[in-house]
Amino acid sequence: MRKLQISVIGYNKDCTENARKVAYEVGKEIAKAEAVLVCGGLGGVMESACRGAKENGGTTVGIIPQEEFSYANQYCDIVVCTGIGYARDFIVASSGDGIIAVGGGVGTLIELGVGYMTKKIIVAMAGSGGVADMYGGKFLDERKRAQIVIAKDAKEAVQVILEKYHNWQKHQ
Amino acid sequence: MRKLQISVIGYNKDCTENARKVAYEVGKEIAKAEAVLVCGGLGGVMESACRGAKENGGTTVGIIPQEEFSYANQYCDIVVCTGIGYARDFIVASSGDGIIAVGGGVGTLIELGVGYMTKKIIVAMAGSGGVADMYGGKFLDERKRAQIVIAKDAKEAVQVILEKYHNWQKHQ
Amino acid sequence: MRKLQISVIGYNKDCTENARKVAYEVGKEIAKAEAVLVCGGLGGVMESACRGAKENGGTTVGIIPQEEFSYANQYCDIVVCTGIGYARDFIVASSGDGIIAVGGGVGTLIELGVGYMTKKIIVAMAGSGGVADMYGGKFLDERKRAQIVIAKDAKEAVQVILEKYHNWQKHQ
Amino acid sequence: MRKLQISVIGYNKDCTENARKVAYEVGKEIAKAEAVLVCGGLGGVMESACRGAKENGGTTVGIIPQEEFSYANQYCDIVVCTGIGYARDFIVASSGDGIIAVGGGVGTLIELGVGYMTKKIIVAMAGSGGVADMYGGKFLDERKRAQIVIAKDAKEAVQVILEKYHNWQKHQ
Repeated sequence: MRKLQISVIGYNKDCTENARKVAYEVGKEIAKAEAVLVCGGLGGVMESACRGAKENGGTTVGIIPQEEFSYANQYCDIVVCTGIGYARDFIVASSGDGIIAVGGGVGTLIELGVGYMTKKIIVAMAGSGGVADMYGGKFLDERKRAQIVIAKDAKEAVQVILEKYHNWQKHQ
Repeated sequence: MRKLQISVIGYNKDCTENARKVAYEVGKEIAKAEAVLVCGGLGGVMESACRGAKENGGTTVGIIPQEEFSYANQYCDIVVCTGIGYARDFIVASSGDGIIAVGGGVGTLIELGVGYMTKKIIVAMAGSGGVADMYGGKFLDERKRAQIVIAKDAKEAVQVILEKYHNWQKHQ
Repeated sequence: MRKLQISVIGYNKDCTENARKVAYEVGKEIAKAEAVLVCGGLGGVMESACRGAKENGGTTVGIIPQEEFSYANQYCDIVVCTGIGYARDFIVASSGDGIIAVGGGVGTLIELGVGYMTKKIIVAMAGSGGVADMYGGKFLDERKRAQIVIAKDAKEAVQVILEKYHNWQKHQ
Repeated sequence: MRKLQISVIGYNKDCTENARKVAYEVGKEIAKAEAVLVCGGLGGVMESACRGAKENGGTTVGIIPQEEFSYANQYCDIVVCTGIGYARDFIVASSGDGIIAVGGGVGTLIELGVGYMTKKIIVAMAGSGGVADMYGGKFLDERKRAQIVIAKDAKEAVQVILEKYHNWQKHQ
């Protein structure tokens, strides 16, 4: 049976040191929960989260905008070369059973939007900056489909997704 | 020479009567400015804007998620069948020199995000509801690349885009 | 009512002089038939076909791989900036009621494949070289969905599409 | 370090019994070579190849056209939900260091085209039917970028990719 997949989204370039640390912990907790880490496969939050997962026995998937493998960070076990540019944000968000946001700019907001549209379980890391802090705890539109949950640390973030996911499975 | 292209984004299903009226006026003003109206080609704001343009001598392009022409509203002169689902939001936003938002849910927010990322001129219609009112006047992330301008009516919205576009052209 | 859309596909770089001439005639005949010319918006066959259409009063649409308008050839009335790279081949093929191939390499073959998969009316220009000559008159797979019709000149190519399209419409 | 990724392409619906058997063996040999099996994640050849890999300790990735996980076959360890329809064929082909074709219709031909365009190592299984037999040993266009190699069995197919890949790496 397929393992749970968690997408980690956030800063690429101009990543803060703090967001890197938070992302590393998120990757580590995903690995410890035996879930698969999915991300956009590039630098910053994506790279730190992949490293956190790899150094703790996890599995990592990088879904990159480019067509060539070489653009992916070195901590990706599996690289999906989309070649479709930033429209790959849709695929990163759709390919997680849950989503964790660490900081992030507008690309991360787009991924939050896709997750919200498809009613994913979404968690924003408190204090990680960027759109995670701007939109954490809020609804992205007036339809109020799915609130973005705020988590105080990586352990809680992964826990929220595991619980909601298992509840959801029970009701299928 | 290519004409100016303006993307109109907003509600699809569950469009309010008010947003339809605003969208019609936006389409009409785009036609009067001899610009091409680009949109997602479906119902609600997209349909009303296309109708407004067509009834005033304009040209309309619908970029639809589906692979078959039949999904487009009847006011599209040209239909682009993407077949890539809602990832077509990227293409709608990228294919406008400027963007006008009328109401809208999270799909519209995603389009605003893409426009913001690629530094388009973005205008939100005041009082049109939805994400146009939620995000009008704001920056979508902490990088503050491009403020979403609020326009009080359709004439002003198109005027803002024309002026900014011509200024931008002068500096190329 | 929407006009008929015909996608012209073929060589980009390394276009032969002969293919350019054929493409120009194809664009001209599409314009004379009052259909809209759709293409990939770049050079070679795409540019010549657009020029042929424009110099004969037609309307042209370029669906480009890039995210910026500036990559399109100067004969495109409307530019669709997909930003999804060569996956835009799917959109070029899907957005034609019929398809005309002039020469072409493997990118053109991919577009023929998409047209064949979605049962479009497909015509290959005889003597235009490339995949148009390699696959003209053939079925692309063993399912034999739709034979690629060979046309001796541009007039015949457009005629074949008009006739098949009107027959198809009668049976809807 | 990332493991080698091999994309297996071929029939979905209407898969022959023979192609299923061949696909199973291909999956098995990919697992034995400790490479990752990438595929389109649906039925027929994709499902059999995944099963062959899973029953021999391998890792499998399914890149599906849909937006929901449930469309993937049960032998996928990791599911990438693209939501972009059959344009995902581009991603399946781009995400393999090498490609193995087992039977297949026009969708498989499109994937061969993408592999050919991006100069992947491509192998067609002899006697597996469909486009694998139609195009095996041939060049897809007149540019003759990359010949599609014919392999007599699954062991040879994987061997060809391993050898060519290691040669290619040595020259980087």
